[in-house]
Amino acid sequence: MINIKENEKLNILNHSCAHLLAHAVKHLYKDAKFWVGPVIENGFYYDIDLGDNVLKEDDLVEIEKEMKKIAKSDKLIKRIELTKDEALEMFKDDPYKVDLINNMSDDEVISAYKQDDFTDLCRGPHMPSTKSMKYFKLLKVSGAYYKGDSKNKMLQRIYGVCFETEEDLNNYLAYLEELKQRDHRKIGKDLDIFMTHELVGSGLPLWLPNGAFIFHELEEYIREKEVKLGYSHVYTPVLATSNLYKISGHWDHYRDDMFPLMEKDGEEFVLRPMNCPHHMLIYKNTLHSYKDLPIRIGELAHDFRFEASGAVCGLERVRTFCQNDAHIFVRPDQIEEEFGRVVNLILDVYKDFDITPTSFRLSLRDKNNKEKYFDDDEMWEKAESMLRKVLTDLKIDFVEAEGEAAFYGPKLDVQVKSAIGHELTLSTCQLDFLLPERFDLTYVDSDRFKRRPVVLHRAILGSIDRFVAYLLENTKGALKTWLAPIQVNILPVNNNYHLDYANEVKKLLELNNIRVQIDDREEKLGYRMRESVTKKIPYTLVLGDNEKEQELITYRKYGSEDKVSVNLNEFTTYLKDIIDNKK
Amino acid sequence: MINIKENEKLNILNHSCAHLLAHAVKHLYKDAKFWVGPVIENGFYYDIDLGDNVLKEDDLVEIEKEMKKIAKSDKLIKRIELTKDEALEMFKDDPYKVDLINNMSDDEVISAYKQDDFTDLCRGPHMPSTKSMKYFKLLKVSGAYYKGDSKNKMLQRIYGVCFETEEDLNNYLAYLEELKQRDHRKIGKDLDIFMTHELVGSGLPLWLPNGAFIFHELEEYIREKEVKLGYSHVYTPVLATSNLYKISGHWDHYRDDMFPLMEKDGEEFVLRPMNCPHHMLIYKNTLHSYKDLPIRIGELAHDFRFEASGAVCGLERVRTFCQNDAHIFVRPDQIEEEFGRVVNLILDVYKDFDITPTSFRLSLRDKNNKEKYFDDDEMWEKAESMLRKVLTDLKIDFVEAEGEAAFYGPKLDVQVKSAIGHELTLSTCQLDFLLPERFDLTYVDSDRFKRRPVVLHRAILGSIDRFVAYLLENTKGALKTWLAPIQVNILPVNNNYHLDYANEVKKLLELNNIRVQIDDREEKLGYRMRESVTKKIPYTLVLGDNEKEQELITYRKYGSEDKVSVNLNEFTTYLKDIIDNKK
Repeated sequence: MINIKENEKLNILNHSCAHLLAHAVKHLYKDAKFWVGPVIENGFYYDIDLGDNVLKEDDLVEIEKEMKKIAKSDKLIKRIELTKDEALEMFKDDPYKVDLINNMSDDEVISAYKQDDFTDLCRGPHMPSTKSMKYFKLLKVSGAYYKGDSKNKMLQRIYGVCFETEEDLNNYLAYLEELKQRDHRKIGKDLDIFMTHELVGSGLPLWLPNGAFIFHELEEYIREKEVKLGYSHVYTPVLATSNLYKISGHWDHYRDDMFPLMEKDGEEFVLRPMNCPHHMLIYKNTLHSYKDLPIRIGELAHDFRFEASGAVCGLERVRTFCQNDAHIFVRPDQIEEEFGRVVNLILDVYKDFDITPTSFRLSLRDKNNKEKYFDDDEMWEKAESMLRKVLTDLKIDFVEAEGEAAFYGPKLDVQVKSAIGHELTLSTCQLDFLLPERFDLTYVDSDRFKRRPVVLHRAILGSIDRFVAYLLENTKGALKTWLAPIQVNILPVNNNYHLDYANEVKKLLELNNIRVQIDDREEKLGYRMRESVTKKIPYTLVLGDNEKEQELITYRKYGSEDKVSVNLNEFTTYLKDIIDNKK
Repeated sequence: MINIKENEKLNILNHSCAHLLAHAVKHLYKDAKFWVGPVIENGFYYDIDLGDNVLKEDDLVEIEKEMKKIAKSDKLIKRIELTKDEALEMFKDDPYKVDLINNMSDDEVISAYKQDDFTDLCRGPHMPSTKSMKYFKLLKVSGAYYKGDSKNKMLQRIYGVCFETEEDLNNYLAYLEELKQRDHRKIGKDLDIFMTHELVGSGLPLWLPNGAFIFHELEEYIREKEVKLGYSHVYTPVLATSNLYKISGHWDHYRDDMFPLMEKDGEEFVLRPMNCPHHMLIYKNTLHSYKDLPIRIGELAHDFRFEASGAVCGLERVRTFCQNDAHIFVRPDQIEEEFGRVVNLILDVYKDFDITPTSFRLSLRDKNNKEKYFDDDEMWEKAESMLRKVLTDLKIDFVEAEGEAAFYGPKLDVQVKSAIGHELTLSTCQLDFLLPERFDLTYVDSDRFKRRPVVLHRAILGSIDRFVAYLLENTKGALKTWLAPIQVNILPVNNNYHLDYANEVKKLLELNNIRVQIDDREEKLGYRMRESVTKKIPYTLVLGDNEKEQELITYRKYGSEDKVSVNLNEFTTYLKDIIDNKK
């Protein structure tokens, strides 16, 4: 979306609209005092002291009406220039403005803008007349402390936005509605995916049964794929002594993002920010021959990062999350083949979820700045050209980001864009020459000498938590059938006559591992149907006389108005096929 | 096993054997000085200062030989009584004995026992002659600090045991060997189940691929069973603010067993010792009608307890573990039916694992001590009689433990005995009247009044970690086929001729979801077969000319010497049946 603050025309328009808002408020609330009314990325707001009044959405409607009236009356907006003393005299009844003026230097020329019976301090520039503001909307009101300090008085902050054309305004409002509908926090609440609670703490969502089902299904999905590709999954504890992270280097470079140390009886533990060090120890636990490599250690690993409490957001940014992580230990000559396998796995998974990546980004080192990178020229040269070759051979359109590699090796990031335009890194594959050094990892080569493996850190779904947030936003919660917690909702038309048949159908579907529920509440069919749609259940079956007599089912697919009647067995086969093919 | 220290006869015998040991050591190490040599539960030990000598297992053989020689020579063991001064004079060359004597009171009669050229301070009594010690064995040697203080000198502690008959000794040694073979720590290492590492910390095992496989299989096994029974599984974070535990009461009553608080930026978190409070919040998140109950919230929940570092043991006693936990919210009138369902689930699971419980223990309140228990007479009366009725109706032989109930409600414990005689509580079902109060949980009853549910806390497998330890001890690591990480090991007789066929067989078995590996290392068949047995793989296939030509397989089942040749499809069907039936 357009950034209003950075667009010159829209900036002036929205600024003038903020004055229009204040003007209207002054008409409706005689004692209103005004603090500041800046333009922001998404429009404008004004912080206003309304005494004991707390505005509600309804009040915004009234204020908007008054704004329209003033706008229509075509008042000219005139610039006035004042000395500091004149300004203090003019605004003496408004302590907020007096505060603003007092903070200005004595010799500054102070400007104000006057429209009819309302004048406001302002640098300007402004539109020539109130008539210029035709297509605006007040969006919401919230409390805001004077100067952002919770010890001060709470003011009323009214948000609004103004455009040049009706179409622009309507498009923007539609976009806001879309944002709201796709907000995974709203969907998460509506569909009982997750909850949060202040007693648990911010950034620590609890997965409710529906959400836990999706979470578990994703875990099993990726685990199964990985096991088939030769990954060995492990379970490792979510904490370790601080010494582990001193060796890995996290202690020096990542400590601020970690949870604080737990010290007791002379022992020191810390929640892990990443699980790489645990996997290094597992590799090191056994002697490895060159013939054993690649060794692929995977884990659905819970990691912990102390995000600022203001930064956490739903499932997207949390303080504990589950990484679909793996560390692959390869000989240097295996980098190309194994990297290719990882990229293929990424592409394979994206197909199952209909994900089209926006870009593949290959981060390389800056050759002219060698001290910034792990010191092994030959390794870098070879590895970078191997990665480049794999992507080229796979005909992947990728960008090279020279100088963007981490100290320890080159990296692939796969970017995707969510339906509301958020760009995020979903999958990554990071080569690492350093951790094998730090943990002194080796394998016995064919010449019986010990050599260092290279590590590929890779994540396909990224964190399961964020992946679910992404799926919810992209589907508005209408997940594909295979991932839906309830796949079929059965509505008997009348419990007295059709419940038996509903139970029969349920039994058969369950025998085929289809997740079914019967809604036999004493509610009208239309009501139950609407709720089935609200809950975004993929298939709703309506079973009445006809269906019962002819052993049929009539289904309505989510998103379609069509009602289809088919033989029960046919339906089962159809649905099993859909589920097996991850549709 | 018999407690030697508490058996009068064996106590004297072992005490005399400790003297015999010291006697032999003195013959072999002229400068040996002796600290104490007590009888313990499993025999005796003697702490000896051998200067710079550090004994090895081989040295014990020599010492044992010398002991036999002295024993055979039939030296009389005579009691001598001394004054303190006489004792000090007699033992003046041994500073440890001097230390002992100096700690005795001046007027005490000090006794010593003399056998041939060796005299040792001792209260006695002793056997009459060295000949009495015929059936003894030195078991091990380890370092032990003088007076147990690591600032003091390290002495050599030699352990041994003595019995009256050869049979008793042999039985005991066989028992020790059995203990060693069944120790889940040894099996865990031999079969790559888990590892520990000081950088991670004590009590925090890492599950290696084989172990993680078993762990995951158990998780899916119990999850599937529970889901079929109407449980809803959730995922909740492993930490929370300390306030959550202040409400639940854990903060007041359980804090010493918890990990320390993590404080940062004004927030306080703590790793959870139990997950009940999280589940209470999930219940409370929705309004419930009496028709919705029972609500069964299950989780494979990771909990954390700060066990003393000396108390942790393998997978049995750890600092983080995975509970097969659930909380069932019922109306008071549903206690009986739901408790019955829990008991049936316990019995059902035990059947799959061939577990015969040693006892069902019903902990009830002490009616004469009412202030010790949650104050609701009627609730207690009804609940206790419901639990009793369920167990009686199921014809379960149970014991009632009056006065053993917790404050918050009556409880069922199911005890099992491991193959080496350890008794442990596997499953529990605890009624709880208190937590619903503390979290103010309600449901809307049919009369539209709000009422309190009762909570059933229940665990079936207990903690998965401890359950695996129990399985390993009971099976010596030879898990049932359905739980074995690798179910079939294929040995091609000759890689040049039989590897193709081996791969064919592998493919077919894998298509049937059987976990297979091929051991095509260039090693002799006998060697590979022995290793297959060592790794306790349920089925080992040997594929040679015969098998290839006739499309047969020849298998050897773990624990049997028989080789069976069958048609490949027949084998697949046979194995699938075994796996499907959890054999």
